[in-house]
Amino acid sequence: MNNYKVTFEPVGEEIVVPEGSSLKESIAKAGLDFDFPCGGRGTCGKCRIKVLGKHLSPTEKEIKYLEEEELSEGIHLACEIQVFDDITVQLNTGKEQVHNILQSSVERSFIIEPLLKKNYSEVELPSLHDQKSDLKRLKETLTLQNHDYEDLKISIPVLQDLPFSLREAQHHVTVIIDENEILGIEKDDTTGIMLGVAFDIGTTTIVGYLLDLHTGKELAVASSLNPQVKFGADVISRTTYANQNIDGVKMMQSALLKVLDKLIGDTLEKSGMSRDEVYAITVVGNTCMHHLFLGLSPKYIAAVPYVPVVSEPLDLKASDFQFHINPAGRVFVLPNIAGFVGADTVAVVLATEMDKSKDIKLAIDIGTNGEMVLGSSEKLFSCSTAAGPAFEGAQISSGMRGAAGAIDHVQFSETMTYTVIGNEKPQGICGSGLLDTIAGLVELGIINKRGKLLSPDQFTNPIAKAFEKHIINYKDANAFLMVPESETAHGRPIMITQNDITSLQLAKGAISAGIKILIEECKITINDIKEVLLAGAFGNYMDPHSACIIGLIPKELESRIRMVGNAAGTGSKLALISRSEYNRSDIIATTVKYIELAAQKHFNKEFAKGMQF
Amino acid sequence: MNNYKVTFEPVGEEIVVPEGSSLKESIAKAGLDFDFPCGGRGTCGKCRIKVLGKHLSPTEKEIKYLEEEELSEGIHLACEIQVFDDITVQLNTGKEQVHNILQSSVERSFIIEPLLKKNYSEVELPSLHDQKSDLKRLKETLTLQNHDYEDLKISIPVLQDLPFSLREAQHHVTVIIDENEILGIEKDDTTGIMLGVAFDIGTTTIVGYLLDLHTGKELAVASSLNPQVKFGADVISRTTYANQNIDGVKMMQSALLKVLDKLIGDTLEKSGMSRDEVYAITVVGNTCMHHLFLGLSPKYIAAVPYVPVVSEPLDLKASDFQFHINPAGRVFVLPNIAGFVGADTVAVVLATEMDKSKDIKLAIDIGTNGEMVLGSSEKLFSCSTAAGPAFEGAQISSGMRGAAGAIDHVQFSETMTYTVIGNEKPQGICGSGLLDTIAGLVELGIINKRGKLLSPDQFTNPIAKAFEKHIINYKDANAFLMVPESETAHGRPIMITQNDITSLQLAKGAISAGIKILIEECKITINDIKEVLLAGAFGNYMDPHSACIIGLIPKELESRIRMVGNAAGTGSKLALISRSEYNRSDIIATTVKYIELAAQKHFNKEFAKGMQF
Repeated sequence: MNNYKVTFEPVGEEIVVPEGSSLKESIAKAGLDFDFPCGGRGTCGKCRIKVLGKHLSPTEKEIKYLEEEELSEGIHLACEIQVFDDITVQLNTGKEQVHNILQSSVERSFIIEPLLKKNYSEVELPSLHDQKSDLKRLKETLTLQNHDYEDLKISIPVLQDLPFSLREAQHHVTVIIDENEILGIEKDDTTGIMLGVAFDIGTTTIVGYLLDLHTGKELAVASSLNPQVKFGADVISRTTYANQNIDGVKMMQSALLKVLDKLIGDTLEKSGMSRDEVYAITVVGNTCMHHLFLGLSPKYIAAVPYVPVVSEPLDLKASDFQFHINPAGRVFVLPNIAGFVGADTVAVVLATEMDKSKDIKLAIDIGTNGEMVLGSSEKLFSCSTAAGPAFEGAQISSGMRGAAGAIDHVQFSETMTYTVIGNEKPQGICGSGLLDTIAGLVELGIINKRGKLLSPDQFTNPIAKAFEKHIINYKDANAFLMVPESETAHGRPIMITQNDITSLQLAKGAISAGIKILIEECKITINDIKEVLLAGAFGNYMDPHSACIIGLIPKELESRIRMVGNAAGTGSKLALISRSEYNRSDIIATTVKYIELAAQKHFNKEFAKGMQF
Repeated sequence: MNNYKVTFEPVGEEIVVPEGSSLKESIAKAGLDFDFPCGGRGTCGKCRIKVLGKHLSPTEKEIKYLEEEELSEGIHLACEIQVFDDITVQLNTGKEQVHNILQSSVERSFIIEPLLKKNYSEVELPSLHDQKSDLKRLKETLTLQNHDYEDLKISIPVLQDLPFSLREAQHHVTVIIDENEILGIEKDDTTGIMLGVAFDIGTTTIVGYLLDLHTGKELAVASSLNPQVKFGADVISRTTYANQNIDGVKMMQSALLKVLDKLIGDTLEKSGMSRDEVYAITVVGNTCMHHLFLGLSPKYIAAVPYVPVVSEPLDLKASDFQFHINPAGRVFVLPNIAGFVGADTVAVVLATEMDKSKDIKLAIDIGTNGEMVLGSSEKLFSCSTAAGPAFEGAQISSGMRGAAGAIDHVQFSETMTYTVIGNEKPQGICGSGLLDTIAGLVELGIINKRGKLLSPDQFTNPIAKAFEKHIINYKDANAFLMVPESETAHGRPIMITQNDITSLQLAKGAISAGIKILIEECKITINDIKEVLLAGAFGNYMDPHSACIIGLIPKELESRIRMVGNAAGTGSKLALISRSEYNRSDIIATTVKYIELAAQKHFNKEFAKGMQF
């Protein structure tokens, strides 16, 4: 079997792969970040690349998804190409995308109490009359400061350094302590230095916050796309990748860890601090991200009965994750509630203190899955619904993520106006823009209760007439033309098809059914809900009014909606700077009751009802 | 700088080393077992090798230690040679030495309770109505069996396997548990299988015992020379090697671990069992061996105030020591008492139950150091004296270890008779033979109270006359000829020199002074001691009567001497099969009070007194 060279432009990366390799594998092997929104299954037509200096015959799927003009330019779908010759491929060029990532947070008080402790000790010198071992001597000094330190453990590498670290410091040392372990010894008094990084690992984006653990002050933030996007856009396609590839889990874990370590470096660079000053890391994410971070297979999360490997909080060595921070560093992974309600949801509850509130609150984090928690300090219920990728712009004909070039907000009055992220020519529409558009068309009666996009002759609302020209025929059905090809960045029109509307109906149907069932479980009425907390990127960009118009959120609650920003990230930060908050995360994870919607007999009925506008 | 080839015969090993390398380093680098009794310091003259096909000029030290005839044959001292050309070296040839290693033990009752537990569990299958994580599900089943299992920890590698091990076994699994950790999961019921290896790591020899942890039955024993011998014969020369060589500790550790792993294999082969069936390992040894096993520097044990790095018992992962046993395997290292009273002494107390005895007992383990413990269940005192290597046959003109060819017992009546290990032509004399000879000569008045070897004209005892001809002149002093050159294996005479007598006096002076001081600390008299327990190789081979004649052990106690064999090994075995015995080792280590002889003002006076016969 022959090997062929694949060259990636404009990065200039070269890689040699065996004959017949898929371009997808080659991109992964080259370690390049490239987005396969449907996970490379050939169902979205989004992974466009350009083959340079060579003509390849288009595949059936490429003919389906690409315009003739594109095909003649050498545009292909990366997921369709197999390597049977040396090949040069231009990956999606153009300026680097600017991602809008939520970094704001709820504000509340908390006790600063870092996850790790530092104790400065002046240890007595040994003598012929006091020959205790180095370790016993150190522990005895520590025990004078805190009785719990009597049974501290120590690892062999720290023990190997101990005699030398003690003596180089004339026995004046700072000891880094986790709950029951001595993690490291430093010369002299370094108690003032202790940084940490709180991570929120989303399926699409990752945010890392550098904090001073003594003051709780945020020193820097850095964010990045989740590099696992190249293995699949959502948790289901990543799980499929894990199941179908030997070392799939390992590859996705290692891609993630590399980016996390880089983000640590980015925050340090921004704040002028050094890696050695970082001692603790907290991690939240949905259960699939949580598992992939730990190198655990998400296989059984994705299959009935959706069981995670572990849900407890974990306290682990940072060096096991190849994080280049202080050698004593630890990683604290927050607990999960269930296979589809992860540590990120725990962090939302932690940040918003729903578990301490007398008032009943509803928290919703909408993404590919919509996770919801409803209740108060008395009891809390959670569920997760498969909303599908519509809110993230995937599997929508003109859909895209909330990045530069995306139409993010749309208003209808006599005309339609819209805003574009980055103030550029539009390239597509993101979830919040889709929501606004469909909500507007529902209000105008252009889309009926059942979700059908009407033809102009069916319009009953006189104002709707103004939008007659927007109704076009696309693949034997009505479509709503948002932006003609002459006004877009890529020269293709941006429109909303009947299929797109159905996708949104499925998404909102799932979520509103979830809310209904939670309300039932709680034995309350909609009116008992005093506050609706919207967490996560989509929840914070979408227009609450639009969400209520289409019934994504019950109309009665419109005035009670509060956006809480990236509450998951805030929860991660709180756990990092406060041991009691970290400990509370475990209580939250075990007390929030998970409702499996798949086990609810009337879920399908509610779901069908919820699809109506 | 040039490189040269060194060839070792008869093994045929070749190695390339830089110009000027010492032959000692080259031997170590080639991984060959070769004995430098004084650690290569050029003070014993024992590391004879033959340089083949090349004449090297002898060094000053070689002229001092080697006979002219030997020099002309190409015999050199390995510690003196530096490599400045390709060279072929014949290492000590002759048949492989058979080592007499003590494997017998004291007998007593104990409770079988292996250090690790196995629990067979039929875990309930998950369902949509019971979606607990794999780990929580497993722990809940275990908790039904034992309430302490609620907070079990688990490492990431075991967690990574967990979903698959559970499902492959249809959730019927055996869980291997250390006190607070799940170490591994096995399919079906494997509770019947659990082996362990107990190690006693001596400075010179290592013994490994394979035990069935459920029955306590010993299945096989294997022993070996400690491969660290090539870095130095005793703890002081090994410490010097550790201090003077970068990675010295690591090299000695890795040589040791390799042999230990091989011994595990040897015992398994003998008993027809497999490596996967071994789950636990216990380790005892003196504090220096203990530190080198763990990769800890012995540097500060050897220097005032003789402080070890750690004295607590340690429970560690077997994989960290490259032991090829079950992946769940653990290593339990017994605790130390002080820098020169190690886990081996703890094991002696454990085995002999001195700590439970109402009668006062004295335990002595004589080697290069003499470790002693005196007391009863009320209180126990210990000390260690630098006896020097005389009892191990080192730094004795005709001395050798207790191996084949060594004169091990000597009797004087009208003539002198002796026995040789292996019934061969004698090659030298070992510690017990030296003791018998000197004791006999003291009884005959041929050696006087002060240790002087008299000339025949000074003999006062008529029977002594019979040995007149044994008195020869050697280097301007009297020497006692044991075997003329015609009757030895190597054609050199075997004799006892005045210096040898002085060496023995130093050794026995140190030990008898140690005993005296312990008796004082205990505030008892010699007669209060109801039993003297002799542990270790030398103690079990030496003749107690000889020991009492020369005053090594107080004469009053001769009838109360009991040999307890390799009690350290027995203690290691007991800890392996009984968690309560293992736990008791910690109590012993912390309650036995260590007396530092160097801090005792009158030690030197007692020492000088003790040197007299």
